[in-house]
Amino acid sequence: MNEISVEVANICNSVLEEIINYLQESQDMNTKVIELKSAETLREKLDLTLSETGISLAELLPLIKSYLQYSVKTSSPRFLNLLFSGFSVPGILGEMVASASNTTMHTYDVAPVATLIELELIQNLNKLIGFPSGEGLMVTGGSNANLIGMFCARHKFVPEVKYNGLENNQLIAFVSDQAHYSYLKATNLLGIGSKNLIQVKSDRNGCLIPSELESEIIQALHNGKTPFFVGATAGTTVLGAFDNLPSIAQVTQKYGLWLHVDGAWGAPVLFSEKHRNLLAGSELADSFTWDAHKLMGVPLICSAILVKDKGILSQACSGVGTDYLFHDDENSSYNLGEMSLQCGRKVDALKFWLCWKYYGNKGYQARVEQLFEMAKYAVDLLHSQKNLELIIEPKFLNICFRYIPQNSHISAEIINQINLDIRNELIRSGQVFINYASYKDQILIRLILANPEIKKADLDTLFENILIQGKKSEKKYV
Amino acid sequence: MNEISVEVANICNSVLEEIINYLQESQDMNTKVIELKSAETLREKLDLTLSETGISLAELLPLIKSYLQYSVKTSSPRFLNLLFSGFSVPGILGEMVASASNTTMHTYDVAPVATLIELELIQNLNKLIGFPSGEGLMVTGGSNANLIGMFCARHKFVPEVKYNGLENNQLIAFVSDQAHYSYLKATNLLGIGSKNLIQVKSDRNGCLIPSELESEIIQALHNGKTPFFVGATAGTTVLGAFDNLPSIAQVTQKYGLWLHVDGAWGAPVLFSEKHRNLLAGSELADSFTWDAHKLMGVPLICSAILVKDKGILSQACSGVGTDYLFHDDENSSYNLGEMSLQCGRKVDALKFWLCWKYYGNKGYQARVEQLFEMAKYAVDLLHSQKNLELIIEPKFLNICFRYIPQNSHISAEIINQINLDIRNELIRSGQVFINYASYKDQILIRLILANPEIKKADLDTLFENILIQGKKSEKKYV
Repeated sequence: MNEISVEVANICNSVLEEIINYLQESQDMNTKVIELKSAETLREKLDLTLSETGISLAELLPLIKSYLQYSVKTSSPRFLNLLFSGFSVPGILGEMVASASNTTMHTYDVAPVATLIELELIQNLNKLIGFPSGEGLMVTGGSNANLIGMFCARHKFVPEVKYNGLENNQLIAFVSDQAHYSYLKATNLLGIGSKNLIQVKSDRNGCLIPSELESEIIQALHNGKTPFFVGATAGTTVLGAFDNLPSIAQVTQKYGLWLHVDGAWGAPVLFSEKHRNLLAGSELADSFTWDAHKLMGVPLICSAILVKDKGILSQACSGVGTDYLFHDDENSSYNLGEMSLQCGRKVDALKFWLCWKYYGNKGYQARVEQLFEMAKYAVDLLHSQKNLELIIEPKFLNICFRYIPQNSHISAEIINQINLDIRNELIRSGQVFINYASYKDQILIRLILANPEIKKADLDTLFENILIQGKKSEKKYV
Repeated sequence: MNEISVEVANICNSVLEEIINYLQESQDMNTKVIELKSAETLREKLDLTLSETGISLAELLPLIKSYLQYSVKTSSPRFLNLLFSGFSVPGILGEMVASASNTTMHTYDVAPVATLIELELIQNLNKLIGFPSGEGLMVTGGSNANLIGMFCARHKFVPEVKYNGLENNQLIAFVSDQAHYSYLKATNLLGIGSKNLIQVKSDRNGCLIPSELESEIIQALHNGKTPFFVGATAGTTVLGAFDNLPSIAQVTQKYGLWLHVDGAWGAPVLFSEKHRNLLAGSELADSFTWDAHKLMGVPLICSAILVKDKGILSQACSGVGTDYLFHDDENSSYNLGEMSLQCGRKVDALKFWLCWKYYGNKGYQARVEQLFEMAKYAVDLLHSQKNLELIIEPKFLNICFRYIPQNSHISAEIINQINLDIRNELIRSGQVFINYASYKDQILIRLILANPEIKKADLDTLFENILIQGKKSEKKYV
């Protein structure tokens, strides 16, 4: 380092300047949130090739500039496409420090501070959920946390699988038909099979119907199967629905099943006195998925699996540590690797902790409540526009709606096409990046409010543009 | 951002300065590589608590300083403890940019540049391995890549498991008794069971014995089982052994088994004309684990799973994408999420690509060859010291040795204790962070050469200190 330190400091400073400019620019209404280019076009614009000979540190700068230029501006308040948006300075600082002080979380001796920070985070998350003597771990994403929830349940029901394998699998898991697709991946990976994941009917708000759940459980028992796991959702991906946890827990308790809650999107409502009722009954769960990279604005990936009963995680994973790694010393009870599916594990705790320190519980409460206010504003706007139809009255921050043509003779199929056109045209123009989904044969536009910088004026402009595009598109089909 | 931009720029600059100082300091021979503190002591020194009220950006700085102060200096050439060491400026820059331009890798539309970069990396890794028409994906660690290798094999053998689950598992997997413990976690997770992971005997160099493998396969077939997977290792964790791939492939081909190679530690020898013979036969594998955060010096985590036959990864994972996410558009063939176990996935490709651009193939070749030179130097030193005994002649960068007392009447048990003492005293002093392991009832000290900044003088000092400590400790027991 000695002889290159000036060069190192220079390039680091230049890149930091680029980053600050990038973030600043992305807040500018005139910056395109996306410049969609096909893979072929983009390939021509970038020098992706890896060569025999290296380049200098200074030569990395134009590569980094191109990277930023062609990246989607997810930090913009007009990035409404996914369940995250915006940026967090403490989070970026956390990643900078974590990558420079590069270590792994498997043992306390190589990650003493990060281990204590992670334990503090887990304890605070568990407190919010209502797991006073719970445990948990930061994991590689919400899908991974859902997998681990199901894995813990499988271990509790058939612990012998760890040694013997699944000799005659009769396990059946239940989620709603609105649940995240990661449950399907989990049944595949765990050897349970997707046919043994029952997708229980949801009601018109997208909430799992507890009586339907009970019927499915009874049916499975009748078929000689072993119901073991129910995955409820707090904030579904498309509609933002919160399953009714007390009613579901009544069923899981009656039949002795494991209750997992996927709170990847909705968990942070727990910060708000006003809205935490959406998660009433969270303490009745056995395990819980929490993504801090969604509503809490920490850079991706920042996820945790939380488990009510201490010991299950390490029981499910343990017995496979090896003595070159997990030494028996005074701090060995702090070796988080013993309850992990990973060996080397990145420090995700620091960025999360810095964000939480910065915002405080109250900051997160304000963030959540501000976004609910924006959701209410959006809903009011939608109600006032006869050419825009709200699909369901949202309980959360997913606003699903569609454009309804002025001409009432237009077919359902064409209405879908018009809504697709609107969305695609918004993206093509780079004004706004917003997503669509299909729900009960309807193409709907899904507005996600995750960025605390979104203002009422942004929503005004969004709906105006949607109406303009809708009218334009409608003309094509008449 | 506008009104806080000066504050933001200030804190970012201050943190960057701290980072540069930290890296500079960690290269200093007088800086302790570790200041081991118990969890209780450290808790007292840090303010870990999360509060109702937040703090200012400026107040984050002392927290970051404490974090760096009490972190292990893994960037130091005296961090010899794990399979990574040192630091890489392009890697740190990559993480800074990735966290600021925060996105997820599941679809091309939100990660266009990162997707193309990842594909370029995968293609180059496959070229090195000898998978000309292979596929691959960046994953969450070497353990995860080993899991996915076994998952692909399971899917190839019993594709119906995806839908039906494991109805009557007879699958048997084989690794050497020196293989990584992640295979045990994989058999647990996949429902195969750890009793169905056969740990085949290794020879005195730690290499899997192909004839023993064949005997075990024959035995399993005789028992009515279904052998399906062999996990070979390129660079074992303790001894650095490379399994003989051509001989193992003869067996896997004869019995039609999937051959996975765990190259997490050893794969980068492929950059060196001089040493790539260690991985001769890599093209005979079906899948391959590659960690760029070990020998290639990219910040953690940076791992890839590489698969020889295109299509297996998505076949194993697919059929579960949902239309709110994976839209059918002109770039949909670039949606990497369809072959991933994750949904949201961090951009690990950028840091890796910037490192590779910077070093070039030749830079990595030089890095690998320089470390082999250091290994040779260490071995020569060990041979010249009658009180130090090399456990095996290393083929790679793991130098396993132990202190042998001057007094020849000291028991085997006490010799183990002396070696433990030496290691613990080195850590306590903060001079050097080095690991130990037990191998055939002997405690050995494991020197890992992963940091290209290690000089001959560093090794001279290391062994001198070990001899001094050994003599001191020996006196205690006589």
